[in-house]
Amino acid sequence: MAVFTTVELQPLRLWLKGCDAGELLHLEGIASGIENTNYFVDTTSGRWVLTLFERMRAEQIDFCLRLMRRLSDAGLPCPGPVVRRDGSLQAILAGRPAALVRRLPGRSVDHPNVAQCEAIGQTLAHLHRAAQGLSRPLPNPRGLHWCTQTADGLAGHLQASQAHLLADELATQQAFAASALFGALPRGPVHADLFRDNALFEQNRLSGVFDFYFAGTDTWLFDLAVTCNDWCIEDASGAFDMARLQALLAGYRSVREPLPEERQAWPTLLRAAALRFWISRLADWHLPRPAHLLAPKDPAHFERILTLRRQSSTRTL
Amino acid sequence: MAVFTTVELQPLRLWLKGCDAGELLHLEGIASGIENTNYFVDTTSGRWVLTLFERMRAEQIDFCLRLMRRLSDAGLPCPGPVVRRDGSLQAILAGRPAALVRRLPGRSVDHPNVAQCEAIGQTLAHLHRAAQGLSRPLPNPRGLHWCTQTADGLAGHLQASQAHLLADELATQQAFAASALFGALPRGPVHADLFRDNALFEQNRLSGVFDFYFAGTDTWLFDLAVTCNDWCIEDASGAFDMARLQALLAGYRSVREPLPEERQAWPTLLRAAALRFWISRLADWHLPRPAHLLAPKDPAHFERILTLRRQSSTRTL
Repeated sequence: MAVFTTVELQPLRLWLKGCDAGELLHLEGIASGIENTNYFVDTTSGRWVLTLFERMRAEQIDFCLRLMRRLSDAGLPCPGPVVRRDGSLQAILAGRPAALVRRLPGRSVDHPNVAQCEAIGQTLAHLHRAAQGLSRPLPNPRGLHWCTQTADGLAGHLQASQAHLLADELATQQAFAASALFGALPRGPVHADLFRDNALFEQNRLSGVFDFYFAGTDTWLFDLAVTCNDWCIEDASGAFDMARLQALLAGYRSVREPLPEERQAWPTLLRAAALRFWISRLADWHLPRPAHLLAPKDPAHFERILTLRRQSSTRTL
Repeated sequence: MAVFTTVELQPLRLWLKGCDAGELLHLEGIASGIENTNYFVDTTSGRWVLTLFERMRAEQIDFCLRLMRRLSDAGLPCPGPVVRRDGSLQAILAGRPAALVRRLPGRSVDHPNVAQCEAIGQTLAHLHRAAQGLSRPLPNPRGLHWCTQTADGLAGHLQASQAHLLADELATQQAFAASALFGALPRGPVHADLFRDNALFEQNRLSGVFDFYFAGTDTWLFDLAVTCNDWCIEDASGAFDMARLQALLAGYRSVREPLPEERQAWPTLLRAAALRFWISRLADWHLPRPAHLLAPKDPAHFERILTLRRQSSTRTL
């Protein structure tokens, strides 16, 4: 599923002339992606992924591409969009903004081991450092404002216990967002969606971090919490596997030591990160978009995680 | 307000080289627009409007530009995007998809007269005819699906009487959308937002119809209803001024005669059109987007219009 836009060979050849990416050899649609259309493109200069942006707003596309370019330039294993001859990172193809990035080696892991978790934590901290100071920052498009508005739209679709959990956690997070502690947390451009399926490994070497299309400016701690809530859990229960959690956090700390304020805020951020994905999965489930082709994921997974994170205020960080 | 993106002269000169629009002479920001950034651009070949798309999805931008091109080619007074040397109607500028259109003469009228209403009706019918068969159609982005989802999000913000009106009218429109009568209505690409401020006149000559950025495929009758609900009313009450209404409808009928099904459905479509704008104004009022700079318009205007249209089933068409 999910090649939304058909790319013809002749317009693609013309589009490729605008960058130094060689002559077209092969084009093949990629059957994944919710927001965008993706193709594998082989040229005389290598193997590439071509992304046509279907639904993202222009400011998001621009921010994400500049972030990816910055991270790639800093030596991180992130796909760097090809800089075109006119200096831009994108150009229109088949009526869509489109960008070309190097195809990264490796494959996703369903069951990450301790070494892989450590590698993810380390790279995440490098990513935070390298992204600092990017111009024209964009607020996290799935931040608390989005959570609040989306929760409003879910009102009629929830059981009473879910509605209570949602309202209570939103109130907690809104109060936290107004606190001095929140204001003291370091922030900058973050990935905000670094799940297992957005990373590639060659054995234990992290060879790729991709899909920056939910990126925005938020606290570094939020990004770390999103990542831990996916990489370091027992999938059935959502409970942390402490070995993997400690490994990921140790990897992160090997690059930058969290502030005391971050250690204090950590339990709240783990809840914020669970809330964000619970809400988006509830919305995908109950408020499907027209022509949304993917089967939505069961929201119960993140409801469990949120409930667990609310029960524990252990400072694992 | 509302120049969201700053355009620098040198990148603009480069961008202009991609089309045959002459050398840049003058650039000036336009202080209006909610969704996009607009500039007046003067070149050695004439006067233009440059639009940078900030928030629209790629499929919407593509559809609207192709629709505008089609209408301009058909001789309608609509801005036709410049066809660039690579054949596309847009190209990236300052990280945004951007298009260049001719600057149209004339000015908006606050208080249209009978002749101006007739001209609007006539041009709207020509527009519907000329737009028929446009490839890759896009459903009206503010259609009934959008209305229903947005109404969900408004639940906590309305008085009881408003909530009742909203729910009742939505139920009416959902039942109507499932009816054979609805299925029999002619449809195609429509403007869907042809308010007074989106047209230009030189005296009584209609010199411009613009802002196609809510365009999509819907019934022609919906478009006609949106237009009548703005052009032919007493502003204070929302009641129709029958002289202007009859003039607009006569103008429309001078080009195409409505089907019996359209005459039958007309009162329901007048309600649908009022509902659509009531909901969007309620959403702008109660659920403002972050960084939304314009003062929202009072939703009460379209609540009055909807209430009036529900009270009357006169077949004015």
